[in-house]
Amino acid sequence: MTDPEKKTLRVALLGCGTVGREVVRLIESQSDDLTARVGAELQIAGIAVRRGGRDRGVDPALLTTDAHGLAVRDDIDLVVEVVGGIEPARSWLVDALKAGKSVVSANKALLAEDGATLQEAAAAGGADLYYEAAVAGAIPILRPLRESLHGDRITRITGIVNGTTNYILSSMDSTGAGFNEALDEATELGYAEADPTADVEGFDAAAKAAILASLAFHTRVTAADVHREGITEVTAADVASARAMGCTVKLLCIAERHTDADGGESVSVRVHPAMLPRTHPLASVGDAFNAVFVEADAAGQLMFYGRGAGGAPTASAVLGDLVAVARNRLAGARATPESPYADLRIRPMAEARTRYHISLDVSDKAGVLAEVAAAFARQDVSISTVRQEGRGDDATLVAVTHTATDAALAATVEALRELPIVRNVVSVMRVEGGESK
Amino acid sequence: MTDPEKKTLRVALLGCGTVGREVVRLIESQSDDLTARVGAELQIAGIAVRRGGRDRGVDPALLTTDAHGLAVRDDIDLVVEVVGGIEPARSWLVDALKAGKSVVSANKALLAEDGATLQEAAAAGGADLYYEAAVAGAIPILRPLRESLHGDRITRITGIVNGTTNYILSSMDSTGAGFNEALDEATELGYAEADPTADVEGFDAAAKAAILASLAFHTRVTAADVHREGITEVTAADVASARAMGCTVKLLCIAERHTDADGGESVSVRVHPAMLPRTHPLASVGDAFNAVFVEADAAGQLMFYGRGAGGAPTASAVLGDLVAVARNRLAGARATPESPYADLRIRPMAEARTRYHISLDVSDKAGVLAEVAAAFARQDVSISTVRQEGRGDDATLVAVTHTATDAALAATVEALRELPIVRNVVSVMRVEGGESK
Repeated sequence: MTDPEKKTLRVALLGCGTVGREVVRLIESQSDDLTARVGAELQIAGIAVRRGGRDRGVDPALLTTDAHGLAVRDDIDLVVEVVGGIEPARSWLVDALKAGKSVVSANKALLAEDGATLQEAAAAGGADLYYEAAVAGAIPILRPLRESLHGDRITRITGIVNGTTNYILSSMDSTGAGFNEALDEATELGYAEADPTADVEGFDAAAKAAILASLAFHTRVTAADVHREGITEVTAADVASARAMGCTVKLLCIAERHTDADGGESVSVRVHPAMLPRTHPLASVGDAFNAVFVEADAAGQLMFYGRGAGGAPTASAVLGDLVAVARNRLAGARATPESPYADLRIRPMAEARTRYHISLDVSDKAGVLAEVAAAFARQDVSISTVRQEGRGDDATLVAVTHTATDAALAATVEALRELPIVRNVVSVMRVEGGESK
Repeated sequence: MTDPEKKTLRVALLGCGTVGREVVRLIESQSDDLTARVGAELQIAGIAVRRGGRDRGVDPALLTTDAHGLAVRDDIDLVVEVVGGIEPARSWLVDALKAGKSVVSANKALLAEDGATLQEAAAAGGADLYYEAAVAGAIPILRPLRESLHGDRITRITGIVNGTTNYILSSMDSTGAGFNEALDEATELGYAEADPTADVEGFDAAAKAAILASLAFHTRVTAADVHREGITEVTAADVASARAMGCTVKLLCIAERHTDADGGESVSVRVHPAMLPRTHPLASVGDAFNAVFVEADAAGQLMFYGRGAGGAPTASAVLGDLVAVARNRLAGARATPESPYADLRIRPMAEARTRYHISLDVSDKAGVLAEVAAAFARQDVSISTVRQEGRGDDATLVAVTHTATDAALAATVEALRELPIVRNVVSVMRVEGGESK
């Protein structure tokens, strides 16, 4: 590119870890292509790092420890943030957006906790805010939700959006291992971090669920609105039980639109392990892959599948957004921001409708089934299937319900625990992907 | 919407068949939502039909038989074309675009044959041209290719983009039926049209392949550049042979980037039936579903899955585009059009690299395998596996090659036909989704 008239857009990169370095590599190795696609050269004008001095394989002259100063510097057009966490990233991005710099962020925690503040700053500064990399890595899912499907009515999103837990559950399913054993293996192989809390307790998936639900339902949903259960309580027995009924256990994020009794609409957003029929398209998503299954009135069923994490896949999503905001900048345009105009009520988990798989250790005597069935009936919960395994001291009763509110199902489980003929409630897990609600 | 200040964007709909009526229904039933998402009301100002007088369930006052007049009418802002075919659709759209009206089209044949003319007209008129519905129905695939992945380097696209042929091949695979029997069933069930030529001969898939390749490789690829073979020659024996080697037969569209001997790059684009390992994500795409598998340097493997045809799914894609062009219109902006800047050479099929599955009816005598192997070796084609089935008069030799140019593979098959010990070349089919090239 030797045209002396060429335009240049100057990029500030905040963060230079695995993803940041890959962003630098992609911008440098594809320089001519990116210039042709954008209509201007993308030039990295500065890279903010927490501590100087380390060799990161990038031009040391670009490094600075003053992220805020870099983000608002006059010569900067676009800011890429791959630092993560709420603060100080929020302050940097708010000030950059207010100063009119368009922002590309991979920060799911920040977007899920306080996306509204960023959106307001973007509006105030007339800048773009894109964050495809925050959900499901390289999989283009946010742009399809906020653009391709915005002439349709999305009714439900079911996603596998955390690679670590999907690796652990896939491994438990194929080897019969328990949770701790599978976690140890995932840690050894680099699929789980030294502190796996954010993944295995579902915090990471809940942040992504909030972002997906906000876009799908045009409603402000934050991480605090998401019912969250992790996978640490999933046992080898649960997985075996799922297998026996043709299911596999997955950590799902589910965002659903409901019609209320008064004719209005509401949404429920939740993350929890669930049994999923092996015939469901999400059931075969193995290892650390991610997939998002979308149901819409006109489009029907759609699925988006790919790598949900890793330096290169995440950087691919960042670069896609970077080209988009760069083109907008050159055109003097701004993407229409998503609007929470629908402002639907967020249903508490108790009102969410789901199905339960319940496994009970029971006394083997006449009338057990009748007593158990009566406990379900008292909560108005209808049983789909029930089967008894073993006899005598080893008798186990496995029941799967029809769809009911989570509150009614939870109350049923409480009532079962109180029954003298129930020695132990062995396992309780939700069942998804079956009957409609 | 009672705000007297509200803006209105007036839409001309060209065509009122299954998709057109569904577009009308979606615009009318989602009026408030669309107004909130666009920032203005979308109003259907006219509907062009070929013949008047029929009840189409739309306001008869909107109907006209003068499509061209409607498309260029002063009060029209946006034009939706769901007529199909090259002419007269091309003339209508060219004049509408030149007159500054943004166009949403579902016309794959026109886009694949002469997209360049439409792009030029759009540039001349400062208008947008969107056509997500032209490929894979409701599946958002064009927007991800032209936006989400434009910071990445796409190396290959493998798609199942024709529902009719996928239904027929899935049925042959599950029932063992021959092609004609499966076609009859598909026709009865409404999956195949009375004249199925465009589907079963691969014309429909070839048009979509050209559109996908153009966007993925930033190169102008037309339908004429696509090597095309249909599925009419696929036999029950081919399907059984695929099954025996853990494969299923699919009509694939494949667009690949190659590195040439001189270090430059080229692309090959082809549509043909192929054996695909059952472990490949595309292998489980059954019935009339579509899916597009994308491989990119940084993103890795991605898959997009959903309904490829039908009124509502296609209308969902049209509406998504309509909201996008409407927003651009309100913002006074125009989407950056795709650019064929890379202008890569189109490789002829003879240079494409693939693998062959070859089934031969041979004399059962000593030295047969040696003679056959020598025929492969003379063309420099390496054999991956070979197995002999049966003995005596029923002996069949099945060979699967490693990757080689299509020309070398075709020459090998010709040479095999000449061998006295080969009584018949029973089946020749390409094998995809395995080793890299």
